[in-house]
Formats: sequence, structure tokens, C-alpha cells
Amino acid sequence: MSKRYKVAILGATGLVGQRFVQLLESHPWFEVTALTASGDSAGKHYREAVHWLLDSPLPPSAADRLVSRTHADQVDADFAFSALDSGVAGPIEEEFARAGLPVVSNAAPHRMEEDVPLLLADVNPEHVALVPEQQRRRGYSTGFLVTNPNCSTAGLVTALKPLDDAFGLDAVSVVTLQAASGAGHPGVSSVELLDNVIPYIAKEEEKLEEEPRKILGRVAGPRIEPTSVVVSAQVNRVPVVDGHLESVSVKLRGKASPADLARAFAEYTSEPQRAGLPSAPEFPLVVRRERNRPQTRLDRMASGGMAVVVGRIRRCPVLDFRFTLLVHNTIRGAAGAAILNAEWLAKKRLLVPRAQTGSVGAGEEPRFVGSGAPT
Amino acid sequence: MSKRYKVAILGATGLVGQRFVQLLESHPWFEVTALTASGDSAGKHYREAVHWLLDSPLPPSAADRLVSRTHADQVDADFAFSALDSGVAGPIEEEFARAGLPVVSNAAPHRMEEDVPLLLADVNPEHVALVPEQQRRRGYSTGFLVTNPNCSTAGLVTALKPLDDAFGLDAVSVVTLQAASGAGHPGVSSVELLDNVIPYIAKEEEKLEEEPRKILGRVAGPRIEPTSVVVSAQVNRVPVVDGHLESVSVKLRGKASPADLARAFAEYTSEPQRAGLPSAPEFPLVVRRERNRPQTRLDRMASGGMAVVVGRIRRCPVLDFRFTLLVHNTIRGAAGAAILNAEWLAKKRLLVPRAQTGSVGAGEEPRFVGSGAPT
Amino acid sequence: MSKRYKVAILGATGLVGQRFVQLLESHPWFEVTALTASGDSAGKHYREAVHWLLDSPLPPSAADRLVSRTHADQVDADFAFSALDSGVAGPIEEEFARAGLPVVSNAAPHRMEEDVPLLLADVNPEHVALVPEQQRRRGYSTGFLVTNPNCSTAGLVTALKPLDDAFGLDAVSVVTLQAASGAGHPGVSSVELLDNVIPYIAKEEEKLEEEPRKILGRVAGPRIEPTSVVVSAQVNRVPVVDGHLESVSVKLRGKASPADLARAFAEYTSEPQRAGLPSAPEFPLVVRRERNRPQTRLDRMASGGMAVVVGRIRRCPVLDFRFTLLVHNTIRGAAGAAILNAEWLAKKRLLVPRAQTGSVGAGEEPRFVGSGAPT
Amino acid sequence: MSKRYKVAILGATGLVGQRFVQLLESHPWFEVTALTASGDSAGKHYREAVHWLLDSPLPPSAADRLVSRTHADQVDADFAFSALDSGVAGPIEEEFARAGLPVVSNAAPHRMEEDVPLLLADVNPEHVALVPEQQRRRGYSTGFLVTNPNCSTAGLVTALKPLDDAFGLDAVSVVTLQAASGAGHPGVSSVELLDNVIPYIAKEEEKLEEEPRKILGRVAGPRIEPTSVVVSAQVNRVPVVDGHLESVSVKLRGKASPADLARAFAEYTSEPQRAGLPSAPEFPLVVRRERNRPQTRLDRMASGGMAVVVGRIRRCPVLDFRFTLLVHNTIRGAAGAAILNAEWLAKKRLLVPRAQTGSVGAGEEPRFVGSGAPT
Repeated sequence: MSKRYKVAILGATGLVGQRFVQLLESHPWFEVTALTASGDSAGKHYREAVHWLLDSPLPPSAADRLVSRTHADQVDADFAFSALDSGVAGPIEEEFARAGLPVVSNAAPHRMEEDVPLLLADVNPEHVALVPEQQRRRGYSTGFLVTNPNCSTAGLVTALKPLDDAFGLDAVSVVTLQAASGAGHPGVSSVELLDNVIPYIAKEEEKLEEEPRKILGRVAGPRIEPTSVVVSAQVNRVPVVDGHLESVSVKLRGKASPADLARAFAEYTSEPQRAGLPSAPEFPLVVRRERNRPQTRLDRMASGGMAVVVGRIRRCPVLDFRFTLLVHNTIRGAAGAAILNAEWLAKKRLLVPRAQTGSVGAGEEPRFVGSGAPT
Repeated sequence: MSKRYKVAILGATGLVGQRFVQLLESHPWFEVTALTASGDSAGKHYREAVHWLLDSPLPPSAADRLVSRTHADQVDADFAFSALDSGVAGPIEEEFARAGLPVVSNAAPHRMEEDVPLLLADVNPEHVALVPEQQRRRGYSTGFLVTNPNCSTAGLVTALKPLDDAFGLDAVSVVTLQAASGAGHPGVSSVELLDNVIPYIAKEEEKLEEEPRKILGRVAGPRIEPTSVVVSAQVNRVPVVDGHLESVSVKLRGKASPADLARAFAEYTSEPQRAGLPSAPEFPLVVRRERNRPQTRLDRMASGGMAVVVGRIRRCPVLDFRFTLLVHNTIRGAAGAAILNAEWLAKKRLLVPRAQTGSVGAGEEPRFVGSGAPT
Repeated sequence: MSKRYKVAILGATGLVGQRFVQLLESHPWFEVTALTASGDSAGKHYREAVHWLLDSPLPPSAADRLVSRTHADQVDADFAFSALDSGVAGPIEEEFARAGLPVVSNAAPHRMEEDVPLLLADVNPEHVALVPEQQRRRGYSTGFLVTNPNCSTAGLVTALKPLDDAFGLDAVSVVTLQAASGAGHPGVSSVELLDNVIPYIAKEEEKLEEEPRKILGRVAGPRIEPTSVVVSAQVNRVPVVDGHLESVSVKLRGKASPADLARAFAEYTSEPQRAGLPSAPEFPLVVRRERNRPQTRLDRMASGGMAVVVGRIRRCPVLDFRFTLLVHNTIRGAAGAAILNAEWLAKKRLLVPRAQTGSVGAGEEPRFVGSGAPT
Repeated sequence: MSKRYKVAILGATGLVGQRFVQLLESHPWFEVTALTASGDSAGKHYREAVHWLLDSPLPPSAADRLVSRTHADQVDADFAFSALDSGVAGPIEEEFARAGLPVVSNAAPHRMEEDVPLLLADVNPEHVALVPEQQRRRGYSTGFLVTNPNCSTAGLVTALKPLDDAFGLDAVSVVTLQAASGAGHPGVSSVELLDNVIPYIAKEEEKLEEEPRKILGRVAGPRIEPTSVVVSAQVNRVPVVDGHLESVSVKLRGKASPADLARAFAEYTSEPQRAGLPSAPEFPLVVRRERNRPQTRLDRMASGGMAVVVGRIRRCPVLDFRFTLLVHNTIRGAAGAAILNAEWLAKKRLLVPRAQTGSVGAGEEPRFVGSGAPT
């Protein structure tokens, strides 16, 4: 058995919590040892506490697990994934970090805090440098907080990164067509969304306009120097189950052609690809050349939902270039992003199996058995 | 009986043809006297030839009408509405015009021709000035061609007009979320569109980028001087039945505030409103102040589907302002627009009831009975 | 002003409450004088308390009304429509009845009580005979309770009634395909219902199997003798906004042909039709002869949503006959049914305008002004 | 390389054709060596000829294949899968059979012919006994025709089989809720199906009522003795992508309880399970105990789309028992069923690799390499 890390999923009954359960079922490094939920669900078997909404069966090992309350002293784990509601996640996640448990979170509250990495491991892997400073400042011992961005931001910034690297990014205008699952469960009522578009999602435009500046920023000593890119976001909810599609226009600092952009997208890789992390897609971006792709239903599961699919790359008469991108909002945009983040943190030895806390020196690699383990 | 004009609907079995039939059923001026369709349908009763897809019953008077072939000598009418497929509309419409029948068309082929008005009666009513020159140039006697824009353009340009008037329009970036009915019937297969977004519609972006320049242009002698506004359009098909929603950003020449824009939208009226034309909405634009409107299903039937609904007016960090608009694509964006155009042409005495051709002098108003008639 | 009755809508912010507001806006007899809701909404203007989900605008007169708490002493009305949640409706409706206010309810709790009419005015109008007995038994003065059936039952039983009258009904097997709005708002989550069918609705099958036996029963002195028809119901939720479609098979006692059934459906009328009640459809049942009708979206608004549409009448190799029916679940199946019930109660002088309580003798007709009033 | 059989897919560009391509991509026995389509597509690469609509990528090996015309002399294969339109399949399939190529067909024309097996390999595997008689009668050498049932029938009859075996089946009443993909592509227009239910599918009820009698029939010498079960079918098209849900009532000859039915379903296996055929689901029927399952989107991919999911088993007050079933219409109900049929035919040595035609004796097993091969 090569699974080295015991992990808790905080908020395991929600839609993103379910994705964590699904994606971790056969994860080579991480073994789920605790599922937590709020008061009513604690003490029940997960299969009774959860309203399972994914189209793969509820994994039997999770089904029979007793749900714990979301308190640090209730879980036996090396670190925690947080799928908590943003409304309650803030103080709970801090409690876990203070108690020594790293929290790899999908929730919003800590994302923009100065000492918390807002991380997509294959976009800004170097931002993990904030962790030691965060621990020092907050007086955390082994615990810390790492967040991944909003689901729409995750797709957008993955596409922006190679453009910023290659050509310098000046301004971005993005209009989103977001899936029902982005609102979680119950989220948006069916009687509202069927045969409808709703041109508003609370706080979503703010996130899309702020988060990319931090993610594309540079590590400057103990903090991130945000980039100066200006983002304008208009968001819409559309009646699809999964997958956020985004119509993007960009203004670049340097010269380029559509073919240059396509190449920058297609060739982009980062640390997780080089490290061969288990959840890393072969390429973070998949470029489709057909004029009518990406399409939400056909492309959302590209590379198991971990790749952002880009298409329709062409010049823009108002800014410089336009393209369409698609991101699976609960995989690449949530649970999958957090898992890849945790793999990267493990690779960087910021996550340490507790049993080995004493035995693994700060400068040593953890020893793994089997292929795919961090080396 | 106050209906003064006998009208033919060309291409009456398609989805836009059905809207013409529905909207003209109780029209105060226009009486449908001919329904045409292609070969297979000609000779059948309309109720057998049509696959009726609207949620009001097929009007009995139309149901029992025999469908004619689409030839000028097969119809007895004062003018024709064209709902023909753009693939065949070009020469057929010309045949009708040459035969003396004005054609008020929703089809694309003649829209960008120099001597053909691309008309939305409450946006650019003065463009009817092209008609005499067109007749002269083409050697038409009483016939002529007038077109209305593409369905997405119709919504966009209605919103742009008061902005251009008040503040001067420099650039526009628009992303559309378009309904299934925009593709007609059969149009897009359900197996493609359910739970999906398709980020491509053939020739749609080109129309959205070109047509507004003509519509917002100025009459300069025998032609239209196009305006210099630059439009960038990205189009998407979403799984809704009716109603195109558009996320718009604009760059203006003059200074303004969101409140200024809201006022410009809300107060805008034009000739059809002043003339009290039967199909003119009280206001071409309805402004919603709620943060989550317009919504496709809730707002598409505003003012009977003839008003464009605008909301979410706010500053844009990349261009100057952003807003969301909604247009009913087969009413305001197609059949309804054409009917309003015809009302305006009647009001301007460019449409003449044939029976009165001899008796109504060129400078005389036609005599109408009853309220709502052009005076 | 011919509106004679002041009416309260209990539970006015829910989806059925909204339908009441919409349908009563221009009702000739009933003037809405109170809108009630639960604690949080009371004291707000209705436009702020409600999440308006209908595709016609919120009526201005309702928008500006202050929402009251749902207590009999908070409303000034001659009677009340109840759109309360079935979970709370029971005792609240009794409170109103005890306080002297008739309650015409869409809620479930009292439907199967022995002395409460389960009424569809054009199916079993004679069941109002229970009212005096109910008042006597319960010690109510002018107040009483009248209910309408479940939305699916409303459609089914309207179609069964003429069959039972003409041929004698032995057994019924019905499978429903029910709309999202049947669950109210928020009801079913969009992330559950998009691209899905859910073959279960809590308590729905029980209602469909029990309610028809009472509705089709005979008044036997102070109670209803239920009919012996056996109903088997299987229910499904499908991703449509409004309109419950039902696939029905019936076993009859007498001989018949499909044409006999079609005639029995098409010719059926009842007291509300004969009395010309304002909300009565011309015919309770509309028969479509096309082989692919009724269709949910195309037919749900037949006769303003008050007619049940029937089609595909044919022999059944297992029972005797099969057909498909469609009912608008929040109009014919809820608010519209209750309004028609109230009109019938007014016509039968069981509802009395309070101001006239003293002046209108028990045996006298209320005096109405204008056409359409009960005479 | 253990793939022993070269196979052609006739009608490979349609929706069922695409499923064949997808499912055969990594099949252990069958190697696709020809893809055929009608005139316009022949000569193109498959990636250009096909409008790929599945949510897994077009397999590269198929993408680059040249599409052939659908003639027996144009394909190099040991047998053919037919995904041809039923409108043209009849004579073409006969041409292939006459030319010596077995045809394993999903098309309708030959299904009810006396000497053609209507086969679901795990329901009526013994019906392959018709093949030699068919070859004799029709003068075919190595060629023959085997069909699988209609997609809705495939689901129904899989559930009926264990009931018929255990309790004797007397009558069945079934109402279907069928997916868009059942109509193929383009099939039903999105403007018709969004927010709608269509209660009619051409010829579907006839198939559902006739095919089960043959499939559940007994081999009686050179023909099938149909069973006497009476089926009543009412079909509906609902707006879901894939998956036909069916609400079923049955009348049995013997006594049983719901638990007996559940057990009969859950324990049912047949020859393909015993033979370990590569496409055989572990169990043809999966029983769900939750009261709201099966659900179309959540359960259609059970056992890779090859299992029929059954739930809500309970008594019926009109017939004897009711249950809900779900079948993936293009896998279990079409391409997957045909592939399993072919595996069974290979196992029964009715399919013979051509290269080995001479070397493998009629009574010999073909020799396979690797696990999963027929032995």
C-alpha cells in the first residue's frame, strides 16, 4: 500500500466535497481517513448523509465511513482538503491550521490574504514560497493555509499564464457561461434555470477581476507582487450541468499572431507536468482547431477534467485577440485543482505524513513506494 | 374592415414565417392574403404544410389557406414579407420587387447592398430615404427591397443607438448567448444542444460586426455613410428556446456615468413611437434595475417581445461601460421588426394599397378607418 | 368598479402564490387586499419580499403592497386563497376559518378530511354541499375550508370525469412527467434536474391514487361516498418549466370506441361553463387530433392554462383505452383551480362580501354590476 | 496483438455508428478495418465525414481512416456491424450477407423476419440457433443476419426476462421517457425539445409491443415460437441527452413479492456472463434500493452503459407489480448490444476470421491469445 498521506475532506457532503471523494477514491498518495460535515450529518454514515449527485457510483469505502464534525480534534489526518461553504470556511480552516493540519482549500475567505498562496500548481507553483512566512507570522507550527482560485478564475488564468509569459498581458475582457454545478447543491433552483440565462452570480465578477492579478503576480520576498493586468468580467449562468465556458478578449504588450497564441497555449507546461504529479494533465491547455470547439458537454472531461480547452483563437478588432475556453468547474476549477495543489505541496515536502514527522528530516524527500510517487 | 393592405408571407412555413403568421393574425392594417413555401408544400393547406412550433394555436384563418409557390405571379398582395432562407432569398426577393411588389425582408442577402435600407424603424427610420434611389437604379416601379438586421444585431443596435446619439460610440465588444430558435427549424439538433454551449454560429459574428455600422450610419444623398464604430463579436448558442442575451462593453467618445446611460436607454423613443405605429413598443428599450435582470425566460416577452431589455449597467475597467441586453430573436429580432418596418413604410406612403394605386395621389395620405391607422 | 370581494392570498411569495397574484390582477370579482407570508417577509413591500419567477411583469398594484403576517387578524378580506406550504397550512387555514374567513386552499392537509370539499368546480361542483355540514360540525360561522386537488390529480380527474359519467370507470394506470414548477421554489435543484429524469416525488403517487376516488365520489347526505375506481400512479420529474404530462390507461365498465372517448372529452361541460364563470374555460377538455400532441410547451397555455389537453386516444391491449393528457400545474392544477372554485362558491352564495353580510339575505343573489358577474 | 476479427461498421458516421467506433476502439477481439457511409462521405477521412458528438475524443485510428461506400466489395472485413438507417438498411444488409459477410445489425428491417434472430446475447442467447436455417433458406454461405432490438425494447426485455423465467409474464404496461439521442442526429430539433415533452415517436410503440414477444419466445425447430405476453406501450421524448427511462407495470402468472422480483432481477445472469464475454456486464440488471433511483443522468453509465438499472419495485393496484428501469439507449440499447451479440456469435463459432476460414475446422474453437478471448 503506497498511500502515504491520511487526508480529511472538510465539508464532504456538498457538491465539491463529493468530487473530492470521487477523485481521491483511487489516488496513489492520499488516503481519505475522515469526512466531515455540519451538525446534522455528523455521526451518520456518509451514504446517508450525502445526497450523491455524481454519475459514478458512490465509492463503497466512503459510503460506509462515519461522518465527523468539522473540528480539528475529530479527525485523524495528515492534512485536510476544504470544500467548506465560503460562508463558514474562514475560521474553521484557521482552527485546523492552528491545530497543526495543513488545509488545502477550495473556499474563498483566505484567497486574497497576503500570506496565503492562491495556487494553481501548474500556473504559479512558486507561490508556495509564502507558506513558511505564513507559518511564522501566524504562529502555525506544521499547519498552514493554501487556496485554489474560483472555478471561473481557474480556467481563465490557466489560459492567461502562457500569454503573459510570452507576450505580456495588458488587459482582459471575459464573459462567462457558467454551469449549474458552480453554485453547488441545491444552488440554483431548476424552476429558475431551465430555458433561462441568469446574468448574475454573487461576488463572481469581483473574484474574476481580482484573483488573476494575484495568481499571475511575482513572489517578492514574503509577499506576492500582483501583476498589473486589468480584467473586466461579465458572468452568466446557463442551463448546463458542468463546465464553465468563457469568451475572452485580451490586449497584449508584445506582437503576436493567432498561431503564436495557439503555440503558446499548446506547448505550455509547468512544474506538475515536469514532476509527473499524479493529477497533472499532460498539458494544462488543450487547443482545439475546429471552429466550433470547445463545447461544454463534449470537452469538459478533457484529460479527466483537468485540462482547460481553448479554441477559436483569432484577432479581436477592439482588443488584440479573442478565444473561447472551457474549464470543468468542479474538477480543474475546484477539487481537482486542490488535489494537484496538495500533490505539489507534498512534492515540495510542505506536506509531511504525521507518522513520519519525526523521522523525515526537513531536507529529506519522503520515501514512496511504487510508480507515480514524488521522488 | 379597416385592414387596408393585402400581404404575402414568403417562406411562411419556417419558424420566422410562423411568427409572421402569428403576429399578423390580428394586425389592424395588414391582412394576410398569401402564404408561400417551396415546392413540396405548395398546394397544401397551411395546417398540413407547416410544423407549427409556437405556443399559441395556429390561427384558423391561416390554417385553412392554401400555400402558394413563391412566385410573384402566384400571390395577390400589396407587398410581401420575406421569411425566406438566406440561401435562396436573394433572387426570389428581387423577382418580387421587379414585379412591382415591395419586399420587407428578414433575410440576409440584400442587407449590405448599398441601395437597400437595413432598417429598424425605431433606430434608423430615416434610412427609408434610400428607397426612391433604389427604384431608380434598379428600374423597379412600385417594388423595392427593405431589410431588417440579423436578430442579434437588432438587439445590440437598439441599445447602441441612444448611446451613439448622446455620447458618441467608439468601440463595442459583445458576447452573445443565443437561443435555439435563432437557427430556425430544424436548426440545431437537440442531441447537440442539450446540456451544452456551442461557441459558433456560421456568419453570425460577421453580421454583428458589419451591420451596426450601416444601421448607425448617416444618409448621405443616395447612400449611407457608415459610422466608424468598431464591433468585436463572439457568439454562443445556449440551450434556451427563445431570446438572445448579450453581454456588452462599450467605449464612448464623451463623458458619461452609468446613470446617464440608464437615462439615455430609458428615455429613447423614435418615429414609430411618435407616430403611434401599431407594433411599436411604448419604449424600444426597457431598463431593469435589479442586479440579476434581464433574464432570458422572464424578460423576452417584454412589450410583446418588441422591447429590448437592458440591465446591469456599470463601468468597465477595460472599455468604459458594460451592460446586459436581451432581445426576442424571432419577434424584435425578425418578424416583429419587419412588421414595424412595414408600418413605417406605410406611414411614409412607400407602401400603397394596390386597389388604390390609381386613386391615391403620390402626395396624399392613404385614408384609414379606425384608431391606430397611419394618419 | 365591479370587484365585489376583498381577498387575501396566504403564502403569496411562493410560486403558487405568485400565480394567484398574476391571475387575480385583473379579475372582475376579486380584489386582492392582503398578501401574507412568513415572518421574514412580513412588513416588506411585496416586490422586495418576493422572488418573482413568472414571465409577466409583477403587477404594480401588488408590487407596492405591504406583506402581512399570516394571521386572521392581520388581513382585511372577505375570504382567503391559501397557497401555503402543506407543511404549515393545516392549523393556519383552520385559524382563518374559525375567525370567519372562508379559505379556498391549494394546500394538501385538509383535502381528504370527510367534511371538506376536494373541489374542481367543473368536475364535482355538487361537492360544495359539504360546506354547511362542515360549518355545523366544526362550529364555524361564516368561515369554512374548501380545497382543490394536487396538480397532477387535477389534470387526471378532469379527463376521468366524462369517462366515468359515460362509460363507468373501473381502473386507471397513470404515469406522469411533471414539471419543475410543481415542486415550487426553490424546489428541485437545477444541478439535479438538468439532463435528468427523477422517478420520484414525495407523496405524489399517494395523492394521485386517493384523491380521484373522493372527487369522483357522490354526495351522500353529509359526506362523500368515494367511487370504487382503482388508480395506479407512477410519477416522474422531467426538466421542463411548467406543465404536467400524463400517459393514462383506463379500464371501463361499458363498451366504447376511441371516437366515443374523444366525443365524451370534447363535449364535456359543467356548472362553471353554464354559469359563465370568469375563469371557466369554454371547455374543460381540449381534444387534439394530431398524433404528437399534447406537447408540454406548446399546449400548456390552452385556454389560458385552464383547459386540460387530451390526445393520442387509442385502444390499450392491456386495459381498454390509452390517452395522453397535459395540465398546467400551477394554473389548472393550483391557483387557477382555486380561483374557479371561489367563483363557484360566490355563485352559490357561500362566499359573501362582508360589507354586505347584513344586507344580503341568505337566499338572495348578491348584486353585481357589469358583465361576467354571477347572476 | 490478440485482435482476431476484422470488422466493418456500416453507417459509421451516424450517432450509433459513432458509438460503435468508440466502443470498439480498444476491443480485445474486434479490429475495425472499414468504416462506411453514404455517397457524400465516401472517400473522405472519417474525421471530416463525421460530426462527432460523443464526449470522449474521436479515436485517432478511426479519425484517419478513409470512409468507404457501403458495398460488400468495398470492405475488407470478417463481418460487419450495421448502424445503417432503418430506411435503407434492409437491402444493403442482405447484400453483405449474400456476399458472405455476417451482419450484426442494430437496424429495424430484418428484426421480425422469421429466420433472423432478434438477439440480446444475455437474454435469449439460444436464438442464434436460427442462423444455420437462415443460411440454408436464403442460400447464404458464410454470411447471415442477426439483429438486436429497438433501444427501448432492449431495456424492457432485459428486465422482463427474469420475471418471465421465475413467475411467468402475462401482461406489461410500459410508459417510456426517451432521450434525444434515441432519434440519432440530427433527430429532433432543439427548438422542439427544449422545455418540452413530445408524446410520440414514429413506430416506437409498435416495436415495444411486438419485439418482446419474439425475444422472449422459444426456439421451436427452425423458428421462434413467440411468447403470449401482451405489451401496451406509450412513448414520450424528454429533453435529456442519453438514457431511456421506463415506468413499467406487470401482471404475472405466479405469486411473488416485491422482494422476489428484486432477487430475480439482481441474481439474473446468462451465457455472456458465464462465458466472460468482454462486453458482458457483470450483471445484466442492477437493482437500486433508493426510492428515487434509477435517474437518467446518474445511472445511465452503470457497468459502462451495458447494465439495465431497475428500482422502485413495488406492488401495483391495477396489475401486479411496478418498477422503473433505465437503459443507455445507444450502448445497451444499440451499439453495445450488437457488440455483445457479436462476441456471443464468435464464442459460438458462427463468426469466423476469414484468414482462418480454411484452417479452422467447423467444429474447432478458434485459437485466441490472451485473457478474455473466447475459449
